[in-house]
Amino acid sequence: MKGAKLQIFDSTLRDGAQGEGVSFSVADKLKILGKLDDFGIDYVEAGNPGSNPKDLEFFKKASGMELKSVKLVAFGSTKRKNLLPGDDDNLKALIEANTDCIAIFGKSHDFHVDCILRVTLEENLAMIGETVEYLTGKGKTVFFDAEHFFDGYKSNQVYAMQTVITAAEKGAKVVVLCDTNGGCFPDEIAQITEKVRKHIKVDIGIHCHNDTGCAVANSIAAVKSGAVQVQGTFVGIGERCGNANLSVLIPNLQLKLGYSCVPEESAGELTETANFIAEVANIRLPRNLPYVGGAAFAHKGGMHADGVAKNPATFEHIAPETVGNERNFLLSEVSGRSALISKIKKIDPNLDKTDPIVRKLTDRIKELEHKGYQFEAADASFELLVLRELGWFAPYFEVVDFKIVSSLSTKASAMIKIRVDEKYEISADEGDGPVNAIDKALRKALEVFYPALGKVRLTDYKVRIINSGDNTAAVTRVLIESADGAASWTTVGASENIINASMTALLDSLEYSLYMNGERNYN
Amino acid sequence: MKGAKLQIFDSTLRDGAQGEGVSFSVADKLKILGKLDDFGIDYVEAGNPGSNPKDLEFFKKASGMELKSVKLVAFGSTKRKNLLPGDDDNLKALIEANTDCIAIFGKSHDFHVDCILRVTLEENLAMIGETVEYLTGKGKTVFFDAEHFFDGYKSNQVYAMQTVITAAEKGAKVVVLCDTNGGCFPDEIAQITEKVRKHIKVDIGIHCHNDTGCAVANSIAAVKSGAVQVQGTFVGIGERCGNANLSVLIPNLQLKLGYSCVPEESAGELTETANFIAEVANIRLPRNLPYVGGAAFAHKGGMHADGVAKNPATFEHIAPETVGNERNFLLSEVSGRSALISKIKKIDPNLDKTDPIVRKLTDRIKELEHKGYQFEAADASFELLVLRELGWFAPYFEVVDFKIVSSLSTKASAMIKIRVDEKYEISADEGDGPVNAIDKALRKALEVFYPALGKVRLTDYKVRIINSGDNTAAVTRVLIESADGAASWTTVGASENIINASMTALLDSLEYSLYMNGERNYN
Repeated sequence: MKGAKLQIFDSTLRDGAQGEGVSFSVADKLKILGKLDDFGIDYVEAGNPGSNPKDLEFFKKASGMELKSVKLVAFGSTKRKNLLPGDDDNLKALIEANTDCIAIFGKSHDFHVDCILRVTLEENLAMIGETVEYLTGKGKTVFFDAEHFFDGYKSNQVYAMQTVITAAEKGAKVVVLCDTNGGCFPDEIAQITEKVRKHIKVDIGIHCHNDTGCAVANSIAAVKSGAVQVQGTFVGIGERCGNANLSVLIPNLQLKLGYSCVPEESAGELTETANFIAEVANIRLPRNLPYVGGAAFAHKGGMHADGVAKNPATFEHIAPETVGNERNFLLSEVSGRSALISKIKKIDPNLDKTDPIVRKLTDRIKELEHKGYQFEAADASFELLVLRELGWFAPYFEVVDFKIVSSLSTKASAMIKIRVDEKYEISADEGDGPVNAIDKALRKALEVFYPALGKVRLTDYKVRIINSGDNTAAVTRVLIESADGAASWTTVGASENIINASMTALLDSLEYSLYMNGERNYN
Repeated sequence: MKGAKLQIFDSTLRDGAQGEGVSFSVADKLKILGKLDDFGIDYVEAGNPGSNPKDLEFFKKASGMELKSVKLVAFGSTKRKNLLPGDDDNLKALIEANTDCIAIFGKSHDFHVDCILRVTLEENLAMIGETVEYLTGKGKTVFFDAEHFFDGYKSNQVYAMQTVITAAEKGAKVVVLCDTNGGCFPDEIAQITEKVRKHIKVDIGIHCHNDTGCAVANSIAAVKSGAVQVQGTFVGIGERCGNANLSVLIPNLQLKLGYSCVPEESAGELTETANFIAEVANIRLPRNLPYVGGAAFAHKGGMHADGVAKNPATFEHIAPETVGNERNFLLSEVSGRSALISKIKKIDPNLDKTDPIVRKLTDRIKELEHKGYQFEAADASFELLVLRELGWFAPYFEVVDFKIVSSLSTKASAMIKIRVDEKYEISADEGDGPVNAIDKALRKALEVFYPALGKVRLTDYKVRIINSGDNTAAVTRVLIESADGAASWTTVGASENIINASMTALLDSLEYSLYMNGERNYN
């Protein structure tokens, strides 16, 4: 039904963590949860406390967060055979996670019951039924993930249906049909979902993997056949070829097909949200990813660029700004400035967009982005850049010289010479690595003038190697997050030399702290 | 019709060249053409001689190649208004390309006729008809690409149909329905293709773009509705979000849906062919690309790895070897012991899983993972680790000392002393950053003993800071990808000091190269 509200269920923190190369710290998970909440996602599946004890720590910390839209979901399997549900360690861990919602996965494919679980078909039905009944009895909202449902339906239609009917009868709020191996196509997903809808009174969900490259189309097919909960991961990460990509599915469903997924105003945050999550997951978003990729609206062919110049609708199925992305002309280098202007106006609200400084700033930012800078996640560096271009910023200090020595020993050492007005200070220190050593030496020198810097701590340090795609040398981008107990801010540096990139971000961080606190006095 | 032969039409060299960052030399194009021919592709669209004179050089050189399966196709637009076809420069260039087949694109969307061509609807029909008639009269096989056909059909059904009927009546062999903006969904593609099939006697083709993430599903929908020519690019490159990805479409159609696309024996060459084309195009294939990506058959979750160890069909929709890819078990906190054992058995197939060395290795790996190592993407380091624990590995060299100096200058410098048996070598170099400097100095010293290392290149360098955000010291994990023209491998290092982490990964990379090539002799 067009216009209907769909439940959007993100599993970045659970199924996404099963993607190659993905490994989240508890702090990473909390950041992503906050971002998904800002975006207006309905459910976030955040871990499997029974199989990964670290997840319990996350759920404990997350329970202290005030969430606006997200309901947290813990994930686990049906109870073991021959155990009362209350005696099953996995179910105990799920309850301990203390979420309102629990996703339970159980077998719907007879082959798996036999080959993996090694129980009888009846025993599996009892395991499903007892698990769902036990958890709903504890006041939990239960989603039943029918693992391998489509393959199971093709193998033994009656049995697959029995598994979801059992879960529904025992109180599951949503029965989620899973294409766990990702091998299905839209027409079979549509037909089978339609059949299930006729036999099941509760809500139907869809969970697709991308092994045939059809996860997005398969999810849409299920929705058109009556599924109302859509599961995926925000940027498509997950086992093997990944899960249905929500950053593609949500605009397809909401902007093109007329369903309601997230608050209307969230659409414009889509690109930024996808980039933020990719950054925290330390994965590279494909440039040609629909809607949110850097080249999703890049026009190269002459006729394409000409057409778009005449009327963007000629070669764009949707306006890029609707999803917070930008049009890009690869040959003519004309690019949109509206996003930038609104950022600058946050710093100087009186600035008119026709002011020549806006053009100058745009050029400067483009130049820096070309060198590997990215200001999306580095607001403090962006603010300093604007202040410097506006002439509103006087430097607090100058680094006259430094030298860092690394050797076979585990420690690195650094010397630095700085100038504050006409005074010089030279200091040295050692650290776990070159950046840690120079950070310590620099603070030693600066605190002679600005003792308040003693409060500033580096809380995060991220390094990203960017391959320009051309044959030029790789550039290193460093993001540093700092905090002083009252505020936290992020700065960025980029260079072919990781030390120089780190220094730029480090110096910005300390200057921002001084600026923010109105420091100007020293002896 | 299942079992039917489909015509596979690859546009890597034309539409693919319109992808961001893609730029082919004539030599590149000839290499890719040869590879597509080996694979058994039917048609290769290789350039637009009218808009790009460099393409004429390519067609001239290509005409000297003996092609086994490929028929070359030149691409261009319908003639201009008010010109005889024989006087149109674009058509002249197309004929000069001297191919048997020509793809002509023309407007099927009334909005584009008006807004871009700025001719009347009748004039556009005449331009289509005269162009097709002229080229067939010259003995050419003509494919008519009906640009924006689906959007055109939705806007003015009668007119869109007139454009393809005109082309068919004037002798086009195939009428290709194009979703040029990539904004369509499978159900509309199916319905509209079905309608066209009822009115058109000639073959129908399908050309999809991926702007909704549905290009593969859309192409399949068209085939099921009667399209027999499938257009795409081998690894999905093309304008904006790219074209339908043939490396995903072909196995879907041939191995899963029973159509015939390429010779049966080609399927096993799929992964290698995709990697070859990506290499020549200088693009990075996403690791999670279906069928051909490095992680397409990578199992990480403990239950997934256990299931696949019991029976691969449990979590694989197709056997990886069918498409020339490999199963891979990822080692991580979410994976279990069985993944590890099957990895060790690849190195020593005789190893029994009860052998005490297995327990020792498991403990060692856990200890290293605790220190920040992650072996799931670092197969070479994993193999070296196992070989070392089994006592099968004798080191090729020892680093006795090194020193790296970074300063305010943009270059870093490094000195190193190594020992090979009883011989010592000391060398120095400078580089863009500390790691680049020590890499260059180390190779200088090693090449004295092992000149073959001259071929080894670092192709990727990834840095990840872990534990950041917690109060413990941050650990840096470094992944280095290396290649020597014949193979590529990945190594890992982890330390609180980024220099030491990089050194570990670097040393593993070079030792792995020496081991792999059976190096032992030096003067």
